Amino acid sequence: MNVFPAGARDLDHVAIAVSSLEEAGRLLELLSGQPGSPPETVEAQGVRVAFHGIVELLEPLGPDTPVGRFLAKRGPGLHHIAYRSADIRADLERLAGEGIELIDPHPRPGARGHVVAFLHPRSTGGILVELVQHPTS
Amino acid sequence: MNVFPAGARDLDHVAIAVSSLEEAGRLLELLSGQPGSPPETVEAQGVRVAFHGIVELLEPLGPDTPVGRFLAKRGPGLHHIAYRSADIRADLERLAGEGIELIDPHPRPGARGHVVAFLHPRSTGGILVELVQHPTS
Repeated sequence: MNVFPAGARDLDHVAIAVSSLEEAGRLLELLSGQPGSPPETVEAQGVRVAFHGIVELLEPLGPDTPVGRFLAKRGPGLHHIAYRSADIRADLERLAGEGIELIDPHPRPGARGHVVAFLHPRSTGGILVELVQHPTS
Repeated sequence: MNVFPAGARDLDHVAIAVSSLEEAGRLLELLSGQPGSPPETVEAQGVRVAFHGIVELLEPLGPDTPVGRFLAKRGPGLHHIAYRSADIRADLERLAGEGIELIDPHPRPGARGHVVAFLHPRSTGGILVELVQHPTS
């Protein structure tokens, strides 16, 4: 059932939906002793994001966005977890072959210049999972 | 506002409530290429837990437990994030002094032989946060 080589996929980040980047960010700075990244707006996904280590905070740009609807329905909490992929197209093909339902059959642009694709929570025990391919530099 | 020395507190784990350790664990093994830790029952908290790297999966021992009620109300998702503490008593005192509301004014036993204390989501932007002190060995 394991379609990846051992150790091939590292946890990339854990994204938490919050109503205010500034409010939640102050807490994480207080706890970690480190400043977060400068907030970045990702218009395509309707969010402002900031990273605190591997914790990504997501603030909706408005109520009628996916994260805005998530917050209204469930309150602040885990939006998704992301694993790093070296070849996102090949990984999506393999996961689909294992019966995992894909939200994005084709990868699309994400934050920080990454290429991303989401798996459907229906086939992942209720957890929204993202694959992330970093730009090769 | 920063009560800790720079870099003093690392993210220890991110705990996700799920209805089945086995179902969600299979997904994380599929993604990470690594087996999870053997499940451990923490009777005092009414959960079975397994670690997949820094992701801790929490399965309630029954519906009438804190995680059981969380799942019934919100579905699978983030239960808490945990930061490591070198001196949990001193940290709790400092956080309380910063106006952070404590669920546990005194630390208590957690999983893996750790000592833990929770901060109240009311004063942390809606996110349940745990401090974890590892046993000195």
